[in-house]
Amino acid sequence: MDDLNKTPAQLQSIQIVGQILNFWRAQNKSIDALYTKHAEEVYYGEVSQGRNSGTYLLAHLIATNDGLLPLFGLGERLFPELTLLQSEGESIVDFKLELTVLKEKWQRLNEVLEDAFSALTVEEWLEKHNSVSEEDFKLDPTRNRLNVLLNRASHQNYHRGQLIFLDKKAIVA
Amino acid sequence: MDDLNKTPAQLQSIQIVGQILNFWRAQNKSIDALYTKHAEEVYYGEVSQGRNSGTYLLAHLIATNDGLLPLFGLGERLFPELTLLQSEGESIVDFKLELTVLKEKWQRLNEVLEDAFSALTVEEWLEKHNSVSEEDFKLDPTRNRLNVLLNRASHQNYHRGQLIFLDKKAIVA
Repeated sequence: MDDLNKTPAQLQSIQIVGQILNFWRAQNKSIDALYTKHAEEVYYGEVSQGRNSGTYLLAHLIATNDGLLPLFGLGERLFPELTLLQSEGESIVDFKLELTVLKEKWQRLNEVLEDAFSALTVEEWLEKHNSVSEEDFKLDPTRNRLNVLLNRASHQNYHRGQLIFLDKKAIVA
Repeated sequence: MDDLNKTPAQLQSIQIVGQILNFWRAQNKSIDALYTKHAEEVYYGEVSQGRNSGTYLLAHLIATNDGLLPLFGLGERLFPELTLLQSEGESIVDFKLELTVLKEKWQRLNEVLEDAFSALTVEEWLEKHNSVSEEDFKLDPTRNRLNVLLNRASHQNYHRGQLIFLDKKAIVA
């Protein structure tokens, strides 16, 4: 069905879902921009004293967003080796997180998510995700893919608020 | 028109806009929770060395969200004395930002915004906001109230990512 056969109300929900997708894309682009603005060594530093490093936070964002593939029933994780970093802090990382490798994974993941997300219809966005049961979804139909996307987009912004502190030169005494 | 007279597609748009409103409300509640968890003096401290204080950030969030009233054509700002803090940093503040007073303003603002937002229809959310011209809105109809709300909700999360650093005890060396 192309847009000519749709009612104004259908076009309205398509527009709104499109705006949420653009919101998601904009957060991704802001993270892209953040990880190209400094010299490489800056990202191995902590965002604030005793807090996470820039490389850990990128790995955490990859792990979290990669989880959307199985959660939305769109496939397996691309980078299962990072899964633990979705919920666990930097202290459990017993291997080196290489910035260049992470940036490639981030890029690849965003391409795969973009292809998968842009193919979903409004109805599919409003279907339940895989961590809610059929029973619970009946009680609360807002526990759908779209709701997760909103929160994941904003989750990136939460950590971006921390990542801008990597720029120590911008500190005002 | 009540829900019984609406088409499935209309109900879909209403549900999605409702989810975005709930997303906005959830960010407000997270900020509420953050400003009640510490002793008062903690909020007068900086979130990180040389960065903004907790009280400044609350004033900044109030100023930013208060701006939604005129931007959406819903009324005048409640707290014009804070307007400058929407765009300007802490260094221009030449008066004391009292935590108790700010928390009252934050609470009052959220009540007023909740009343105004919950009365808007889907069509009204998709209308242009007041900082875009009719001509530009025709070229890009996503420059509507809903888009601003999405970004303002996420803006709170950006600063919440910084505000959790106020909890110095949680620092892991």
